[in-house]
Amino acid sequence: MERLLPMSPDHDPNGGNSSSPGGGQTGKEQQAAGVGILLQIMMLVLSFVLGHVLRRHKFYYLPEASASLLIGLIVGGLANVSDTETSIRTWFNFHEEFFFLFLLPPIIFQSGFSLSPKPFFSNFGAIVTFAILGTFIASVVTGVLVYLGGVMFLMYKLPFVECLMFGALISATDPVTVLSIFQELGTDVNLYALVFGESVLNDAMAISLYRTMSLVRQNASSGQNFFMVIVRFLETFVGSMSAGVGVGFISALLFKYAGLDIDNLQNLECCLFVLFPYFSYMLAEGLGLSGIVSILFTGMVMKHYTYSNLSENSQRFVSAFFHLISSLAETFIFIYMGFDIAMEQHSWSHVGFIFFSILFIGVARAANVFSCAYLVNLTRPATRKIPAKHQKALWYSGLRGAMAFALALQSVHDLPEGHGQTIFTATTAIVVLTVLLIGGSTGTMLEALQVVGDAHEVSLVEHNFQNSEGNHSYVAPSYDEDSSSGNKIKMKLKEFHKSTASFTALDRNYLTPFFTSQNGDEDDDFDEPMPTSRRGGFRH
Amino acid sequence: MERLLPMSPDHDPNGGNSSSPGGGQTGKEQQAAGVGILLQIMMLVLSFVLGHVLRRHKFYYLPEASASLLIGLIVGGLANVSDTETSIRTWFNFHEEFFFLFLLPPIIFQSGFSLSPKPFFSNFGAIVTFAILGTFIASVVTGVLVYLGGVMFLMYKLPFVECLMFGALISATDPVTVLSIFQELGTDVNLYALVFGESVLNDAMAISLYRTMSLVRQNASSGQNFFMVIVRFLETFVGSMSAGVGVGFISALLFKYAGLDIDNLQNLECCLFVLFPYFSYMLAEGLGLSGIVSILFTGMVMKHYTYSNLSENSQRFVSAFFHLISSLAETFIFIYMGFDIAMEQHSWSHVGFIFFSILFIGVARAANVFSCAYLVNLTRPATRKIPAKHQKALWYSGLRGAMAFALALQSVHDLPEGHGQTIFTATTAIVVLTVLLIGGSTGTMLEALQVVGDAHEVSLVEHNFQNSEGNHSYVAPSYDEDSSSGNKIKMKLKEFHKSTASFTALDRNYLTPFFTSQNGDEDDDFDEPMPTSRRGGFRH
Repeated sequence: MERLLPMSPDHDPNGGNSSSPGGGQTGKEQQAAGVGILLQIMMLVLSFVLGHVLRRHKFYYLPEASASLLIGLIVGGLANVSDTETSIRTWFNFHEEFFFLFLLPPIIFQSGFSLSPKPFFSNFGAIVTFAILGTFIASVVTGVLVYLGGVMFLMYKLPFVECLMFGALISATDPVTVLSIFQELGTDVNLYALVFGESVLNDAMAISLYRTMSLVRQNASSGQNFFMVIVRFLETFVGSMSAGVGVGFISALLFKYAGLDIDNLQNLECCLFVLFPYFSYMLAEGLGLSGIVSILFTGMVMKHYTYSNLSENSQRFVSAFFHLISSLAETFIFIYMGFDIAMEQHSWSHVGFIFFSILFIGVARAANVFSCAYLVNLTRPATRKIPAKHQKALWYSGLRGAMAFALALQSVHDLPEGHGQTIFTATTAIVVLTVLLIGGSTGTMLEALQVVGDAHEVSLVEHNFQNSEGNHSYVAPSYDEDSSSGNKIKMKLKEFHKSTASFTALDRNYLTPFFTSQNGDEDDDFDEPMPTSRRGGFRH
Repeated sequence: MERLLPMSPDHDPNGGNSSSPGGGQTGKEQQAAGVGILLQIMMLVLSFVLGHVLRRHKFYYLPEASASLLIGLIVGGLANVSDTETSIRTWFNFHEEFFFLFLLPPIIFQSGFSLSPKPFFSNFGAIVTFAILGTFIASVVTGVLVYLGGVMFLMYKLPFVECLMFGALISATDPVTVLSIFQELGTDVNLYALVFGESVLNDAMAISLYRTMSLVRQNASSGQNFFMVIVRFLETFVGSMSAGVGVGFISALLFKYAGLDIDNLQNLECCLFVLFPYFSYMLAEGLGLSGIVSILFTGMVMKHYTYSNLSENSQRFVSAFFHLISSLAETFIFIYMGFDIAMEQHSWSHVGFIFFSILFIGVARAANVFSCAYLVNLTRPATRKIPAKHQKALWYSGLRGAMAFALALQSVHDLPEGHGQTIFTATTAIVVLTVLLIGGSTGTMLEALQVVGDAHEVSLVEHNFQNSEGNHSYVAPSYDEDSSSGNKIKMKLKEFHKSTASFTALDRNYLTPFFTSQNGDEDDDFDEPMPTSRRGGFRH
């Protein structure tokens, strides 16, 4: 509580004869705290520099996230060996509060904020299918397999509900590493939109599922029925989404009518703009909903509507601002994960659990991707079907990152008798392995699948090139062909697909004119050839 | 510890039958935490909007800082009346750690970073005199008067050393409110530079003095002599300054040679840039020095050297970034101060202490300003003497803000038996009164003294107008006239004055070419007609 006050650690009055209350910390501990933060900042700087050097030399086997993780692992290992271990650990072992209040919100907001509307909306049906249905499938499959593994004594046995919780948290895929490589190599915009859209939305789904399962576990004794579980899930998901969208719309109207862009009040504009996401996050938390889900949708709405009501300077600033803080938060999370893994006394009795978990999440992701792709392809015309190589790339891209780690950290508190610890250890191991292995091999995989340098290749240099006409055929798919098959499911799926198409129309005809100050047809948001990743250089 | 996890407050498993450790917080408390932060964000938004409306209508009696303080006072008062009081208070009553780790560093850095070099360096001697010698005089005078007041039973009696500590902390003046009005009304650049430079540098002086006195108090029994006190003070001040300047120089060299500005890596550039100030802060803390002093000098060095090594986009971004976060932090601090003052159960037995303190700090500031101005005028040629009306404006501008509040918060821990509490109550009262009264009347005062609309008037609209030639006569003062008086002190003062002039030459001939990539004569930093305040719109 009193660390880092402007009082010198050497001469801490609390260590002296002062009668101040709670002065339990010695000067040495305070010094260690300072050294701990210094170390963290140096690791951050090192990560950025190393990542930059690696990228400049086109060394794709160690992306930035992997580099950060490795730096954390190495420093953690060194600290573990040295004597100062305990005092440094106390500073690294920070509370989840910091994680959830300061690190996660900017990352999630940036996910939503950096979604490029055009490829996202043209693949909206597929993305929603993968994110909602697919994550549900993956969670259940993982949960059931882990439970069966436990029953068959292959691995540590967990209760069924806890297996489902593990399934939910481990189904949250992370976009960072894969996408930075996608962008670096230049890949098909539709594949990019699928991978990005899925990994962003499935965080929201995974957290809602996790929370629902946590409720089920808690109320198992009070005899809640399955129906109530579904209601609770919808309550969390839809409620959070509505809160997020609502806050986003309010911000759009505020900026539309406040006229701040005319008055040259860039600082005021930016201050207000950066407060809204956090407002959305806290509103959802205050209402007992999920802040993460809410801030994600706020990000999407604010990018789509509020953003275009800003002055040009502020637009440039807020993009750079959210990019900056999410980069810092992400890098910090990867460093922290590496450090934590090196510092923790992991019980290696979990090694079987880890091994089979990895196997099972691979199976579960296959069940997710290929079944959902089958469903999506049923509704799409022949020209727009998701090709098999894209499905494989999507399957391969499912590495686990910050969200899985955060939920696992949470589960340590939620679950009794070391079950949470087992899940946490397994999750951190899975995160490290997938980040290092999948992250390191994505380039090779993309080349092997021949999806590199596809039609809509975009390199960093060509960012400003306007090829929005190039993939125009994807935007307005023709629904009139191939509809004679008469399959009932197919019909329903097509109706859903049409509803997403009509959402685009709704957006264009009503929402955009109402919430933004731009004219209906000059859509500023749609001129980006490719969504920007959360790392790497960005356009000017 | 477990507040604000993504777990629903309503259905918190820790409140249920979970066996997780440390689950002492109930769902209700978690909800209150969410509501508390929501409230804070809404107050921030309200402050920005209200401040904007007031400024737009040119209502100078309630500047933004005063508005924020009032909003805090009102909401605090309402919360005090309502039933939810206790739960909201737990969230507002945050630790000093948050204050010192997250709120103060950006404000202090921005102080240094927004210093405009030209008027600052041309008035360097005067500013240093006011900040170092003047703050010392003000601290000692206040301390002695408060002690005498105690001895004469006019006010609560404190030990002499604690009186000096109080004198030191209350001598830290705050630039925010006064300067925003100065800038709004347009005043003489030299007066502006004096007020700004003094209030920035005297924070560093006040904190060093406070710490030195704190050490003296602590080691009173161990028989330290006066000489050691001086050494300790110099150690803290010079050590912190060197650390800050050193980190600034390192950053300048890094950006000069890394070549990030060529490669279009704006995000990487900005990430690294924003890490350095914090690094400086933590380095000083880790070394047992003052982080505040260190980060201030890092800000000055980074603005002067590192900044010009950035790409143009990054320059624009980092200026806006530090402006943004310091605005947020400042507004938050003023809201928080207001809220805290409304919530605390102040014992009004301190009312005498408050009354006489205000009287004494007025006297002490007069001793500071007029004696230092006399000394400075001894060395200056007749054309450059500080006029009496500027001295009066300077005397009047000494309102107390965040730094005094922070140190008073600190003193609650440092001092025994409610002495700290007395100082804290007095300081908060002084902060509120000076912010509201001085802040509200600065416009009137400037008009009464006829320093409004002086020679170098700059309005917000004219920011880009390059009038750097206009006050050129101030930069190279002619030292060869008026040197025949032969007074010894006068000679010494002039030597000091010359050394500051030679510092300008050193900077121009050696430091700038070495640490920046620009040519010697095209000095990018010097084209700003007037330093930007930490609030208000900024140039593009």
